[in-house]
Amino acid sequence: MELLKEKIRQEGKLLSEEVLKVDSFLNHQIDPVLMYEIGKEFVSRFSDHNITKIVTIESSGIAPAAMAGLILGVPVVFARKRKSLTLTDHLYSAKVYSFTKKETNDISVSKDFISNEDTVLLIDDFLANGQAALGLIDIAQQSGATIAGVGIVIEKSFQTGADLIRQAGVRVESLAEVQSLQNGKVQFVGEETI
Amino acid sequence: MELLKEKIRQEGKLLSEEVLKVDSFLNHQIDPVLMYEIGKEFVSRFSDHNITKIVTIESSGIAPAAMAGLILGVPVVFARKRKSLTLTDHLYSAKVYSFTKKETNDISVSKDFISNEDTVLLIDDFLANGQAALGLIDIAQQSGATIAGVGIVIEKSFQTGADLIRQAGVRVESLAEVQSLQNGKVQFVGEETI
Repeated sequence: MELLKEKIRQEGKLLSEEVLKVDSFLNHQIDPVLMYEIGKEFVSRFSDHNITKIVTIESSGIAPAAMAGLILGVPVVFARKRKSLTLTDHLYSAKVYSFTKKETNDISVSKDFISNEDTVLLIDDFLANGQAALGLIDIAQQSGATIAGVGIVIEKSFQTGADLIRQAGVRVESLAEVQSLQNGKVQFVGEETI
Repeated sequence: MELLKEKIRQEGKLLSEEVLKVDSFLNHQIDPVLMYEIGKEFVSRFSDHNITKIVTIESSGIAPAAMAGLILGVPVVFARKRKSLTLTDHLYSAKVYSFTKKETNDISVSKDFISNEDTVLLIDDFLANGQAALGLIDIAQQSGATIAGVGIVIEKSFQTGADLIRQAGVRVESLAEVQSLQNGKVQFVGEETI
């Protein structure tokens, strides 16, 4: 998605060769017009499915997921993150390890909001090691829902997440695929190296 | 806002005479079409201001704020919640006490994203004791921004928050004002008692 890549080129900050910060339009400040375009792109890429529900994780997944939900006219559920769950009654839950924060969180969704009659599209902001997306897949599978696939705003293709999800038999659509953050430059998959 | 009140009547769950749960369309599952209507209503109520930025708090404020931002074509910033901030460099931060959870969190916004040139609309999902909204007001004041006011989806008018904010000289617009949750019934301000 060229509009998104252009925004990343203009505003993305490289904190290291592994960390891309996009706080100005996705992770802290949100550009709602861009989020709407991102929502449209997700809807278009998964138009071969009759999606009944979108599932994401708080907090940065909410805006793009809400826009996709608005366009499709379907509800959006955001999984909650907790240090650890004490009550798991009536919840689907999964453990998600964060390599950046070096901690494990539980994510959970109430059993009220996903069922085996749903076809779910899972949306998240970043895909790096894939732990969050695999947690969402786990939750969707517990519910018996059909998984249309995973929609990702920014994929760091030099990390293992996308492969892990595809190996799990789930389709991944990433709107910007970052091949490398080396030499102070964001290089996207398929771009010529200059 | 009649559409919202009707949704609360239909789907709100009364957990006690003080707690109204609206997990099916606002706090866990989101109804994006309703959120868009809520965004429109906020924009209409604050149309006398030239709003340059919307500020909210993760996670439940994000969807209604993003929709208002989409309609106005302005950025949305969501304050982050943390148990306690270790680094406060380059952040505006405020302490927010939660009466429900009996704990204090820090909320913070990067100094990159609000300035004294902004006119901000502060949006949140619920207004009860007003601590979160007062925290947002504090942050906006630190930045020197002009505060257009506070837009609230659901106000519990039998608690003190709305009064506290008005006493601070800030305008509050709440789209549904709950007068009472007694006798297993949601009664809105201005409604006839049957």
